[in-house]
Amino acid sequence: MRIGEPTGFAAYNPPVRELDLLNHIYSRNAGLPSRVTIPPGDDMGAITIGGASVLVTVDQVADGVHFDLATTPLAKVARKAVTRNLSDVAAMGAVPVAAVVAGCLPRGFGEAKANALFDAMRAVAMSYDCPLIGGDISMWDHPLLLTVTVLAETAGVEPVLRRGAKVGDNICVTGTLGGSMETLDDPPDYVHHLDFEPRLNVARKLAGDAMLRPHCMLDLSDGLGKDLPRLCAAASKPEPRPAGRGPSVGVELWIDRLPISRGAHRAAQRDGRPPWQHALGDGEDYELCFTIPREIADRFPTVIEGVPVTQIGRIVAADDDAAITLRMPDGSVQPMGEYGWEHHD
Amino acid sequence: MRIGEPTGFAAYNPPVRELDLLNHIYSRNAGLPSRVTIPPGDDMGAITIGGASVLVTVDQVADGVHFDLATTPLAKVARKAVTRNLSDVAAMGAVPVAAVVAGCLPRGFGEAKANALFDAMRAVAMSYDCPLIGGDISMWDHPLLLTVTVLAETAGVEPVLRRGAKVGDNICVTGTLGGSMETLDDPPDYVHHLDFEPRLNVARKLAGDAMLRPHCMLDLSDGLGKDLPRLCAAASKPEPRPAGRGPSVGVELWIDRLPISRGAHRAAQRDGRPPWQHALGDGEDYELCFTIPREIADRFPTVIEGVPVTQIGRIVAADDDAAITLRMPDGSVQPMGEYGWEHHD
Repeated sequence: MRIGEPTGFAAYNPPVRELDLLNHIYSRNAGLPSRVTIPPGDDMGAITIGGASVLVTVDQVADGVHFDLATTPLAKVARKAVTRNLSDVAAMGAVPVAAVVAGCLPRGFGEAKANALFDAMRAVAMSYDCPLIGGDISMWDHPLLLTVTVLAETAGVEPVLRRGAKVGDNICVTGTLGGSMETLDDPPDYVHHLDFEPRLNVARKLAGDAMLRPHCMLDLSDGLGKDLPRLCAAASKPEPRPAGRGPSVGVELWIDRLPISRGAHRAAQRDGRPPWQHALGDGEDYELCFTIPREIADRFPTVIEGVPVTQIGRIVAADDDAAITLRMPDGSVQPMGEYGWEHHD
Repeated sequence: MRIGEPTGFAAYNPPVRELDLLNHIYSRNAGLPSRVTIPPGDDMGAITIGGASVLVTVDQVADGVHFDLATTPLAKVARKAVTRNLSDVAAMGAVPVAAVVAGCLPRGFGEAKANALFDAMRAVAMSYDCPLIGGDISMWDHPLLLTVTVLAETAGVEPVLRRGAKVGDNICVTGTLGGSMETLDDPPDYVHHLDFEPRLNVARKLAGDAMLRPHCMLDLSDGLGKDLPRLCAAASKPEPRPAGRGPSVGVELWIDRLPISRGAHRAAQRDGRPPWQHALGDGEDYELCFTIPREIADRFPTVIEGVPVTQIGRIVAADDDAAITLRMPDGSVQPMGEYGWEHHD
């Protein structure tokens, strides 16, 4: 999870806990110098350096948590370590420019494998025009952990924040959701959480086009079930310099509109749970989630830069911070909070 | 160790291995875009963003490697996680501006301790005008690992690189060396590797003063014994865009001039080895090491910004890359390579 963000279900239920947490965060962000233009709590932070806006994000991938070294090719480990960060860059509508990598390697990992791993990260990063410009290597007697930091630039497009959802907005997602751990046959050995494509191009198009620009955006790292409450909480935040709380917002999620991935269908076949629960709870989708004004919803494109875009619900007024309700296919409405899906994080 | 740097003794002996490694590094750096103004292999990398030069460094501290969580107060763990990076900023003569933190916490670490740890890192960073602007938290069943990335700006002073040592230069260090793991009484419970002061002010004075500006600089993280070969190797490097190799340089180190720390004396009392071996091999000094033209050596200050500066040797021509010789107090000269000090890294 990002530093400065509420911790999903656990945090928004009971709501008072989330407010405590947010207040704690604001009290710390309030002391930040004015050159910090995006404080902790968004997909990237930003600071002004020499008149330029510099965005930065950090993410770690650990053996046994985010990948299984015993069964995952090094090239895929390297890819995920880099692309997780690029998904954060996409979430801001920014452009990646450079990366640094820290690797803590199990003793005995071997120089050849270490070189292969770092060369692979270098190659993945370069393929996104995001050269590796530094790093650090340590050894220890524990599993492999890779930490990647990516710097990004705005390149003339104001970053899209998590904050900004408005009552009446429609909620959109790119791609399909759920089943990110499933191995598919087509393309061969495709496993979404390792092979996903960070949505940089879609995000850039959205952020830079006045007709399309979302009110707010984040990337789905822990699944809609955890990330939608974050989007709502951000919308309810005061300005970075506290000036009273904004209106509390919630989400009405349209279950029959969710774009279900093939992986989610496969997972559902195995465990007998409905595919939509996988779409909400599996996590590691690395798709964009954003809101758009209701007025443009009818003419909003269903495909952007070759990627499907689906409207899956709307922002509603809510008494509690971040109340998510599910509109089921039979028309009934129920709170999401009843579902406590387990997922890796 | 930094990505892109030779690995000390192991690498420079035999020398051919270091040349292989350096060539491998150059071949990779050669493909970097021109906006990368400092490629991997220095204390920080640098890239141009929106016309501004942005420097970045990453370092990790792991329980059992860089600190012992069982015996170290969280505040000291937090301090070291941040100041290790600030020492890299000092090594460039740059000014820190922002940090991001990734923490991989042992399951069961507890929310209160986690908050205390991150609040402490935030406070340390802010005390150096380097606000925390983002981060990532994961949990796993292994020891605590913290990875800190720091961004820095040049603020009108060209960064001082590792590369640039010239035959005839004198070699200087700040502070005193060795015994960084020893616990001292004055100040109470001072342990250098946890409590050191990153030499930001001294470095800034050196880099920004035309009369004092070093030819090259790095910070001593692994001890003179490992870091001097790196300084020599960097001096022998071609330009970032390969244009033939420069002259190979070595070091004549004046053993009786080494500024021996109280910690080194204490360690020597315990293990019976001479204090100067501790000064060379213990590591984690986080002092600056830099070279200055011979012509200004006689009038070079012995104290800068309240910190002692000592001339400890000179750069000499060398047949092999990075040959270090020791001029002993009795006038004899011997190669450093015979000593194979063990130290934590």
